[in-house]
Amino acid sequence: MKRVVLFVGGVGGAKLALGMYRVLPPDALTIVVNTGDDFWHYGLRVCPDTDTVLYTLAGRVDPVNGWGIAGDTTVTLDALRALGETPWFNIKDRDIATHLLRTEMLRRGHTLTQIAAHLAQAQGVTCRVLPMSDQFVETRVQTREHGWLDFQEYFVRHRCQPTVLDVRYEGAEQAAVTPQVAQALHTADLIVFAPSNPWLSIMPMLHVPGMRAAIAQSAAPSIAVTPIVEGRAIKGPAAKMMAEMGYEVSYASVARFYADFVRVFVYDKRDPLRELDAPRLVALDTIMTDEASKVRLAREVLALSEMV
Amino acid sequence: MKRVVLFVGGVGGAKLALGMYRVLPPDALTIVVNTGDDFWHYGLRVCPDTDTVLYTLAGRVDPVNGWGIAGDTTVTLDALRALGETPWFNIKDRDIATHLLRTEMLRRGHTLTQIAAHLAQAQGVTCRVLPMSDQFVETRVQTREHGWLDFQEYFVRHRCQPTVLDVRYEGAEQAAVTPQVAQALHTADLIVFAPSNPWLSIMPMLHVPGMRAAIAQSAAPSIAVTPIVEGRAIKGPAAKMMAEMGYEVSYASVARFYADFVRVFVYDKRDPLRELDAPRLVALDTIMTDEASKVRLAREVLALSEMV
Repeated sequence: MKRVVLFVGGVGGAKLALGMYRVLPPDALTIVVNTGDDFWHYGLRVCPDTDTVLYTLAGRVDPVNGWGIAGDTTVTLDALRALGETPWFNIKDRDIATHLLRTEMLRRGHTLTQIAAHLAQAQGVTCRVLPMSDQFVETRVQTREHGWLDFQEYFVRHRCQPTVLDVRYEGAEQAAVTPQVAQALHTADLIVFAPSNPWLSIMPMLHVPGMRAAIAQSAAPSIAVTPIVEGRAIKGPAAKMMAEMGYEVSYASVARFYADFVRVFVYDKRDPLRELDAPRLVALDTIMTDEASKVRLAREVLALSEMV
Repeated sequence: MKRVVLFVGGVGGAKLALGMYRVLPPDALTIVVNTGDDFWHYGLRVCPDTDTVLYTLAGRVDPVNGWGIAGDTTVTLDALRALGETPWFNIKDRDIATHLLRTEMLRRGHTLTQIAAHLAQAQGVTCRVLPMSDQFVETRVQTREHGWLDFQEYFVRHRCQPTVLDVRYEGAEQAAVTPQVAQALHTADLIVFAPSNPWLSIMPMLHVPGMRAAIAQSAAPSIAVTPIVEGRAIKGPAAKMMAEMGYEVSYASVARFYADFVRVFVYDKRDPLRELDAPRLVALDTIMTDEASKVRLAREVLALSEMV
């Protein structure tokens, strides 16, 4: 049995996570989730990427948005608006239950790792879903128009419209790789980076002290999958951010980002082969529109591990 | 214009509050609300008595329970149960919006007084609704079966079934009368104690340092209305508690509770006149089943102020 550690961010990463979850025995799969997007909202601790992964694997995710719960309602949101609020983050009624339970467990002293395990079990998710750390790390985005913004302010409130100048990961210095993540990396046979935004989803995880070392010390080879196809991001602001931060908007920029710690980089077969020193490039169909394509890409990425 | 300060606890008090609200110009009415029932629930700050009063005055209250919002739904509660939780406090979806907004305002440094004013204004309530203090005071109940319980654990979780040995008001020593409550008492022409539980609703307010002095120093006479009629509480555990704490279960025990600071005590006309040194006793129909009876009792209590 090949033990796989999959690093994921939001919706794009959750798609490959579902493919892997369908293909691998649950014991063989560990998903490490970005928590840099986490934030406090009306007193609730919201962990968007963790919930997106859990809702996706549990078969509860809203199929249109790729986040939130299918068929969820907005009674509380509507009542907040009736009280004069203009809530900019879409927390619907079923979703609120998750945030209430998480907030209560935090108050009782449970760690994010324990909470994610409990929420996974409660939703029938059988693989390990591990937050990148138990400490709070918060991604902040420096914009030309509004200065430094909390990630969700940039991402949701301002709909990624401000021009990005820089990104930082607050609290990362005080964070640490959890024993669970360290153990998973230590015993992994393959490490995969899902098609997630390098700066907003992958970098927060790499900024956790000890994470890069744990990846480097693992005997497992690692593979990354491009989130950029034909100069566009499948979802989210990755392409726009790359242009604003002065990068060429192509998979090549992402491949260079991964060059020093990934052996194989999967670009999309719709793109031309580029000449890069590293990592080794492999073309696959990376666009996941339905469950079959998620399973196919998962199988093809796992098959690549034979050649690395 | 007669300026009235009405001290209220939960559902019973809110009924007389509605009567007063219908009868008096909004500027003439200040309602001081018990916050000893407040508690944290899944990370939300819940203020049951404040919300019961506001929902009642705003015409939003659930007419069957007398608390909560009419027609509210349980999507979040059901989702919590689906996650394996057994939530014992009934927070429904529209109600959650109130708790989210309060919790967020607390986080931003607003006081309970400011938050109650904002929630009143947002719901169209035009009289002043003042929490008894801006500090957290938490009523705890000592029971034979379970030791010391938080008020809501006793009241909701255990449905008032444990035998009550004692009551205390945690944090009261560090609390203070707010400037708004002090000012209202200073300028009051009449002080009224609604038919609320003496130990669970009125005592927490009297335990706020400075409250008894502010009442005593006010030039206004004060009137209390019995919550006990024919040896029974109209609602809630008052009668059961009185028996358990060794009091005779009758309005006379409540009148004695108020003896040293209330000039007139309103007992129900269904009960016989008792001989007491103080306070002066007046019989009225204190049972409020509909809006007309709330308005009638409010008018009759206000008329008593002519004779005190």
